[in-house]
Amino acid sequence: MQMTKGKQLYEGKAKIVYATDDPKQVIQYFKDDATADNAKKRGSILDKGSVNNQIASHLFQLLEKEGVPTHFIEQLSDREMLIKHVEIVPLEVTMRNITAGGICRTLGIEEGIVLNPPVFEWHYKSDELDDPLINDDHILYALKAATVEELALIKKLSIQVNDFLKAYFAERKIDLVDFKLEFGRYDGQILLADEISPDTCRFWEHGTRRKLDKDRFRRDLGDVESAYQEMLKRVVG
Amino acid sequence: MQMTKGKQLYEGKAKIVYATDDPKQVIQYFKDDATADNAKKRGSILDKGSVNNQIASHLFQLLEKEGVPTHFIEQLSDREMLIKHVEIVPLEVTMRNITAGGICRTLGIEEGIVLNPPVFEWHYKSDELDDPLINDDHILYALKAATVEELALIKKLSIQVNDFLKAYFAERKIDLVDFKLEFGRYDGQILLADEISPDTCRFWEHGTRRKLDKDRFRRDLGDVESAYQEMLKRVVG
Repeated sequence: MQMTKGKQLYEGKAKIVYATDDPKQVIQYFKDDATADNAKKRGSILDKGSVNNQIASHLFQLLEKEGVPTHFIEQLSDREMLIKHVEIVPLEVTMRNITAGGICRTLGIEEGIVLNPPVFEWHYKSDELDDPLINDDHILYALKAATVEELALIKKLSIQVNDFLKAYFAERKIDLVDFKLEFGRYDGQILLADEISPDTCRFWEHGTRRKLDKDRFRRDLGDVESAYQEMLKRVVG
Repeated sequence: MQMTKGKQLYEGKAKIVYATDDPKQVIQYFKDDATADNAKKRGSILDKGSVNNQIASHLFQLLEKEGVPTHFIEQLSDREMLIKHVEIVPLEVTMRNITAGGICRTLGIEEGIVLNPPVFEWHYKSDELDDPLINDDHILYALKAATVEELALIKKLSIQVNDFLKAYFAERKIDLVDFKLEFGRYDGQILLADEISPDTCRFWEHGTRRKLDKDRFRRDLGDVESAYQEMLKRVVG
């Protein structure tokens, strides 16, 4: 499909969104820029934009087949994804299958504990507030950021995404530790939006627990680029 | 009732628990010590122990009549309450009718917004971790600190307590802004425990919004003792 890339609508930490001729469609451009610790740590990961676009495009298409509606329309190029122009719900979902990161700090528990059933979290999407953990009542009665029906649907879809991805990665000898999802409103529908990539998931090589995700950047573990390439190979290759 | 005060079992920030001859009963002694900001701020409020014991004893008896089971047995003296020896569930419930304190910082919203329905929060009772906000999944699947049935019962009782207290204080021209509850296990039952007092509630004089609770100490507003005495008069007097 030929799309004319219009003016820049939004620049985030890892992506830029451009208008197209069609107000219902926008282009999501994936950058190599990497940030961590709420942008207090900044850097770049060579070819990350390309890897994340390929991984996310692949996974969105698989999820669509599983009945999860997403904002994905088409991968336009190496770093460009054509998507439906959603209004992002200002919430982030975190699904956790194994403890790591925030939950360890919040609860004072070790990394690597298997959570079964998985732990579901709502975070309020706010850089100023550091994406705080919140609960249903905060969303419904204090922020009024979504309806009861939207929360129920987003939760149901998130569990469906986790069930599918966990099995998909397990076949590829990858433990899906946790991941972040965002959703958007589009024509009265709720669509899975943003991306699914080593930026937004924690992936551990099964057995060795070698980290194959952005934690290599966050924690200065080295071999960041090769971890992203390894994930591309396992997901798409 | 005559009770022999035995050895000290536990000393908290505002209370000491002593054994009695009966292993099923203990004495809760109310101190004047006041702490705030997770004990980084320390001080003392004259006669606070006596005021809180009288207010809590009075409210526990009213709540028992409303069908809320509590640990209260008898007020033994000015600062001593005989209670059932519960095993404290390591959770704190916060019920919020008006925004103030933590919720304003977490969500970046103003103090004084009416929440209707009220907002219910779970916090993990941990001084080291600063009593973090958590959700049901954390309790059930990560901490394994309570059962589904216990959480449902505690939530139901907390709403019942809020409904009763909100109306009770409204009659006394006090807005019940928010409060913290703790619960304990005793003989297979869940009992309301700890205390209900100006240490654990936010009380605003209706209309003027003058603070009549521990925020006067937390924020160095002055007239701390007289606020506690005023609440004693309105509740018991």
